[in-house]
Amino acid sequence: MTLSLNDRALALADRLAGDAEALQVKVETLSNGTRLIDCGAGGFEAGRSFAEICMAGLGTVAYSPLVLEGRWLPALTVTTDRPAIACLAAQYAGWRIDRDGYFAMGSGPARALIRAEELYDELGWDERASAAVLCLETREPPPADVAGFVAERAGVPPAALTVLMAPTATVTGSVQIAARVVETALHKLHELDFDVRRVVAGFGSCPLPPVAGDDMAALGRTNDAVLYGGQVHLTVQADDDILRELVERLPATASSDYGEPFGNVFKAAEYDFYKIDPLLFSPGQIRLTSVESGRSFEAGRVNLEVLERSFWG
Amino acid sequence: MTLSLNDRALALADRLAGDAEALQVKVETLSNGTRLIDCGAGGFEAGRSFAEICMAGLGTVAYSPLVLEGRWLPALTVTTDRPAIACLAAQYAGWRIDRDGYFAMGSGPARALIRAEELYDELGWDERASAAVLCLETREPPPADVAGFVAERAGVPPAALTVLMAPTATVTGSVQIAARVVETALHKLHELDFDVRRVVAGFGSCPLPPVAGDDMAALGRTNDAVLYGGQVHLTVQADDDILRELVERLPATASSDYGEPFGNVFKAAEYDFYKIDPLLFSPGQIRLTSVESGRSFEAGRVNLEVLERSFWG
Amino acid sequence: MTLSLNDRALALADRLAGDAEALQVKVETLSNGTRLIDCGAGGFEAGRSFAEICMAGLGTVAYSPLVLEGRWLPALTVTTDRPAIACLAAQYAGWRIDRDGYFAMGSGPARALIRAEELYDELGWDERASAAVLCLETREPPPADVAGFVAERAGVPPAALTVLMAPTATVTGSVQIAARVVETALHKLHELDFDVRRVVAGFGSCPLPPVAGDDMAALGRTNDAVLYGGQVHLTVQADDDILRELVERLPATASSDYGEPFGNVFKAAEYDFYKIDPLLFSPGQIRLTSVESGRSFEAGRVNLEVLERSFWG
Repeated sequence: MTLSLNDRALALADRLAGDAEALQVKVETLSNGTRLIDCGAGGFEAGRSFAEICMAGLGTVAYSPLVLEGRWLPALTVTTDRPAIACLAAQYAGWRIDRDGYFAMGSGPARALIRAEELYDELGWDERASAAVLCLETREPPPADVAGFVAERAGVPPAALTVLMAPTATVTGSVQIAARVVETALHKLHELDFDVRRVVAGFGSCPLPPVAGDDMAALGRTNDAVLYGGQVHLTVQADDDILRELVERLPATASSDYGEPFGNVFKAAEYDFYKIDPLLFSPGQIRLTSVESGRSFEAGRVNLEVLERSFWG
Repeated sequence: MTLSLNDRALALADRLAGDAEALQVKVETLSNGTRLIDCGAGGFEAGRSFAEICMAGLGTVAYSPLVLEGRWLPALTVTTDRPAIACLAAQYAGWRIDRDGYFAMGSGPARALIRAEELYDELGWDERASAAVLCLETREPPPADVAGFVAERAGVPPAALTVLMAPTATVTGSVQIAARVVETALHKLHELDFDVRRVVAGFGSCPLPPVAGDDMAALGRTNDAVLYGGQVHLTVQADDDILRELVERLPATASSDYGEPFGNVFKAAEYDFYKIDPLLFSPGQIRLTSVESGRSFEAGRVNLEVLERSFWG
Repeated sequence: MTLSLNDRALALADRLAGDAEALQVKVETLSNGTRLIDCGAGGFEAGRSFAEICMAGLGTVAYSPLVLEGRWLPALTVTTDRPAIACLAAQYAGWRIDRDGYFAMGSGPARALIRAEELYDELGWDERASAAVLCLETREPPPADVAGFVAERAGVPPAALTVLMAPTATVTGSVQIAARVVETALHKLHELDFDVRRVVAGFGSCPLPPVAGDDMAALGRTNDAVLYGGQVHLTVQADDDILRELVERLPATASSDYGEPFGNVFKAAEYDFYKIDPLLFSPGQIRLTSVESGRSFEAGRVNLEVLERSFWG
């Protein structure tokens, strides 16, 4: 028996859909049979479910407050024992859908069937599943044609595709993005050409960004939650020299674009993601423990000043 | 399909009763067939279950410590995505039972069938259920006659009524009252004539009051846990002007009776609740985020000095 | 119906084994039919499961970070409503297996069937079960002969025995030992001749020790996590005079061996456990609340300085 990310996600999506009314998510069937679970009106539970589905059930999300420099903030904790698979093969928003005028970034385990990213060869992950689950951070539901395209790429019938969606400026959006705190660390490791399969465990916490007035403002806050409030501890199979050097480059603090709320950085980049230092996207504080030596290496810090300008500004 | 608060609570109550021995709750059947679940000897798990039943499964309770001004305190976190329904239609202890010499304040979803409070018209909640679940903070089990009266008011046969009870001065009592931290914020909003249906998400934390030597002392401590240690963040559909004005009046700090352990306030009021400022009952610190603007407004603070006088005094 | 610790643990072990691939545990059957669940490659979820199985499902483990003196640390929270049974009858590593050249300390509910310790008479616990679940902190799987010996002692067929194992220097090892934070307080109470059945509720938190480079180093760190980072609140049926006197002797701070990382203490004792003050093994900070009076008594403190020397040294 081999682990199927999509089958695991499907079981969780069924549970979410089964308690739709209480969780305030809307379950619809598109004309081609694809199931759409709109989590835009959901809250903490829909957000937790969205995040755990995105990680294919290979990570957990729990709520508790954080007190940062004396300041009380709602927050979440993420743990995963399969960091590379849960966070990159499944959770990472790495598939750009741009079709028939519909645009969205796709995350979640359906990507592992589509293999549109080079990542999957590097991870050595061979996903098999009879259903596909895709997650979208968007306000616009995908048309049936786009869903059909996704299903075809995933190699499943349209009726075997489940699409979850939530806009950025919602409680569910805040939660599912804050729950990417470990993922961003993994992705940054990947960007730094580190073999992420060597990460054996991830523990992270992130303040929950307050819901913003529009999705653009929410984009700023949700990034800031991770960049200025995210803290991650990874356990890694690597020697001290590698980790000592790596950790200095790993947190957001190592980026030339660090120090301002993301909204300002984005504006200065004329709203062009490609003008932003790609190495900015990482938790503010990271600790790496070497399984081989038992030594730990740490860099970065949380930055309450920027976080508060972002959250309350 | 319409959500039934009592049916949801019943499923959770069945689970509690099903693990009664481990959870140290006593399940009895009164002479009229009503099921009584006595949680007085229960602990953290019975308390969590009591609280989640009280919220009709529309809120969650989790344990983690809080460190307030360097002081470590056992605490809980509450989240709810249906604040008005979970906290007021279900959880609020708003129904005064005074019958045949038996007195208790009733909380939990049975109240939504009884509709003894004006609240239900304001909430626009039309509860339908074939069973009823009532929660009592008391040391005295209700006689069968009183249970029969409750069942009749709820419109269900006595055998379809489940009554949970726990005295104040118990671990379960501490937990289920601390778990009212979001509810008290909602109730205060309601007292201030704000339409609580506009609150879309609630996140709160509260230290767990240590068990007191008697129920009167416990009444003080459990109130103090919320008044001086409760912190709540609400996401609200309302504009900035309304929230800016509202938040100043919302936390316990805004009350003229704020500043002393509740036991002293109660004594000064000659043990007459009606002589206490009704606006005292609210968490110590509250933050409101406007969904419309994304701006947040905050007032109040935790007060470790009073909390410690209450908890260790 | 009487509570069976082993039957409860078995249900949880079946669930762990049922999701073995995701949780990265290896399930094997020894030649005599005993089931071995090797959790050495597992992580946070396998660790939580290991710990909850060890407590026979009578305690819970949850993850959230702790901020100690401004320092962010991954941590866990343990609650139990059956402290003496969950922690001593089940979780305590009190049974020394030394047979055919195989040595390991046995913990978990199988011990309650074996009754090799005087403890069980004191607890008045009469365990009945048709299966047995034993937990081992070891890198070496037990040979079938040793498993057969355990089964025989437990009075069950070898095929009705489940053995969980995890080495100290693993994520699972870190978790399951940190999850003993309440247990160590209970055990110290027992060493001080206090009737532990009077403890009605336990709440504790403990930082997660980073995985060490070898099991000996891990032994140091995992002990330090409890001794210098563990904080426990117990609710107790006892009067003030007893608790006031007891609490001063209870935390690790009360031991003459307190103050250095455990690795140094162990080395100074020439790696002979019996030369170490047995009263060292306890959480750093303990609070006791008397159910009778409602008063609390507290002693000890966390010690970030020693904790950091241990964790990062």
